[in-house]
Amino acid sequence: MRQVTSEDLNDIALGAAVLGTGGGGDPYIGKLMAQSSMATHGAATMMYADELDDDDLVIPSAMMGAPTVMVEKVPSGKEIVTAFKALTEYYGKEPRATMSCEAGGLNSTTPFTVAVELGIPIVDADMMGRAFPELQMCTPTLAGINATPMAVADEKGNSVIINTVENRWTETFARTLTVDMGCSAMIALYAMTGKQVKEACVLGTISYAERIGQAIRRARANHLDPVETVRAATGGYILWQGKVGDVARRTETGFARGDARIDGTGAFDGRSLSLSFQNEFLIARDGDTVLATTPDLITVLDAETGVAITTETLRYGYRVVVIAMPCDPRWRTAEGLQLVGPDYFGYGVPYIPVEQRMKALGGR
Amino acid sequence: MRQVTSEDLNDIALGAAVLGTGGGGDPYIGKLMAQSSMATHGAATMMYADELDDDDLVIPSAMMGAPTVMVEKVPSGKEIVTAFKALTEYYGKEPRATMSCEAGGLNSTTPFTVAVELGIPIVDADMMGRAFPELQMCTPTLAGINATPMAVADEKGNSVIINTVENRWTETFARTLTVDMGCSAMIALYAMTGKQVKEACVLGTISYAERIGQAIRRARANHLDPVETVRAATGGYILWQGKVGDVARRTETGFARGDARIDGTGAFDGRSLSLSFQNEFLIARDGDTVLATTPDLITVLDAETGVAITTETLRYGYRVVVIAMPCDPRWRTAEGLQLVGPDYFGYGVPYIPVEQRMKALGGR
Repeated sequence: MRQVTSEDLNDIALGAAVLGTGGGGDPYIGKLMAQSSMATHGAATMMYADELDDDDLVIPSAMMGAPTVMVEKVPSGKEIVTAFKALTEYYGKEPRATMSCEAGGLNSTTPFTVAVELGIPIVDADMMGRAFPELQMCTPTLAGINATPMAVADEKGNSVIINTVENRWTETFARTLTVDMGCSAMIALYAMTGKQVKEACVLGTISYAERIGQAIRRARANHLDPVETVRAATGGYILWQGKVGDVARRTETGFARGDARIDGTGAFDGRSLSLSFQNEFLIARDGDTVLATTPDLITVLDAETGVAITTETLRYGYRVVVIAMPCDPRWRTAEGLQLVGPDYFGYGVPYIPVEQRMKALGGR
Repeated sequence: MRQVTSEDLNDIALGAAVLGTGGGGDPYIGKLMAQSSMATHGAATMMYADELDDDDLVIPSAMMGAPTVMVEKVPSGKEIVTAFKALTEYYGKEPRATMSCEAGGLNSTTPFTVAVELGIPIVDADMMGRAFPELQMCTPTLAGINATPMAVADEKGNSVIINTVENRWTETFARTLTVDMGCSAMIALYAMTGKQVKEACVLGTISYAERIGQAIRRARANHLDPVETVRAATGGYILWQGKVGDVARRTETGFARGDARIDGTGAFDGRSLSLSFQNEFLIARDGDTVLATTPDLITVLDAETGVAITTETLRYGYRVVVIAMPCDPRWRTAEGLQLVGPDYFGYGVPYIPVEQRMKALGGR
């Protein structure tokens, strides 16, 4: 158990953007929300998973919607707790803690608002070890845990409790409700026991994000290369270096979908990287050569500052470095790949771990 | 309190089609569903509103969706109770009875399935005295009663509980969920106390539908004019007689919308009636002359049999008589007209009670 201050959140948000692989919403927004709540209520308490009793109730909380909309429609602290409260009422039992659904982006920090507003701890863990675009894409699904009962709530006071026969339905129902609610909504789902959190979640990921963020901050303060710092802190690979040549994006059925072209510079001069995203960056291709695919993490960093760039802020002319990092081993199982592998997203290429792809290409 | 047999349901469905003003789904489907349940469980018990205790819990039940889809996707008795059960569980209190949301069409009879399957009575009442296309369009809304908590469920076992700050939101959320669930779903909503049912609902409408149905059946058996029989049984007016010339329909956002042209015959020869519908027939115009509008009831009868024709079965060549009937007086208040008047549906004409319109036109 430890305190997480407003200062600590700066590092967590910086690192969560790296784990967000371009998606999960702008971490800056989630940070501002949580810091605004901290200004009133003080620091948050973060507990480690092993401090949970086996029969404790943990209710993860998040925001859902198109990141392009969320940036313009920032909910207040009071609004962010509506879904959490609706699900708590439905259970009729006080939760021991809340948790992040994804270690990446906005939703790494939104549960801090819930924790601080309600005076409960947040668990140092998440359900992906990164960010993914759909609700069923999490390690609890692999462990057979039900996403429902799930609460969806808007800032007007409307709330919905969903019970489904299969986790994938939560994505269908919650996505259309989110569109009805104005393309962004608050959600609470995958309520778990302490035992389930310990067994089925990715543990320690909030601290991990914080360490990445600290590394970036310190590298910048000490005039070191922040990109190399991120690579070293994550055990990742440099996929590409270049200038954003073109970004084609379309907001479809609540998602920010699109493709970006990164024109190589330095060692990559004369060639172009193709990056495809659906909220998150999912595949990086150099012509016919696949460099990395989901579920491994693909992140675009500002070449100068090492700060991760989200898919919705990516613009022509940005000088960037694209890095790839190995995902949680559970994603590499047959069940994991069925849920989040390149085939699920329609890319029609086999999954090969990024370490193997890099080795085959002679390392980078 | 009385028994309603499978035979009685034939009359109720026949009369409910008249009150359905072309919408509310095919009453034949609802009847078959209820009769199938009765074949297993026996007759239904119908209670009068004055037999309810003031603090009894009454949960109305219905089907929701595009009638064009509902006729092809008929749920079984087990499926129709899912939403009712989900809402009962949410309340944690046994309901005294179920009720019809609309006296018109499919949903006049679907609650009989719930009543028979669960062994509880159905109240002889509804919430409209007719059928309307949207969930908030009912007399309990006028009385300030919340539509929520509301349950929406599909035949796969998925269920959703909705809580809204305003009844109109139930229409938005439930409509998109219905589309997700395959364009038809079971719903339970507007849970009321016995006192609220007595004060805020349209009482005796199921018996009323039965009397209309009996009149049609007897007229046909005795070779009387069934159309004149319906007119007399409902205190209505003959608006038009003719042949269906054209029907333009489009299924949009879960609704069956469209326009029909009825080429006059007999006294109406040489002129055409224009009928517009959104699930229900909502306005009848003879050129620039408005003959009747929502919330008064506009129904198209088969000229031969007196049987009401739904908007989705209306076809070129049908010989029909169009009748209009006065609506419940609550719909004629300023609040009622705001909810279901011609302006709400975008027809841009003032509401004038059909009795006055007919008098101004010299009676028909």
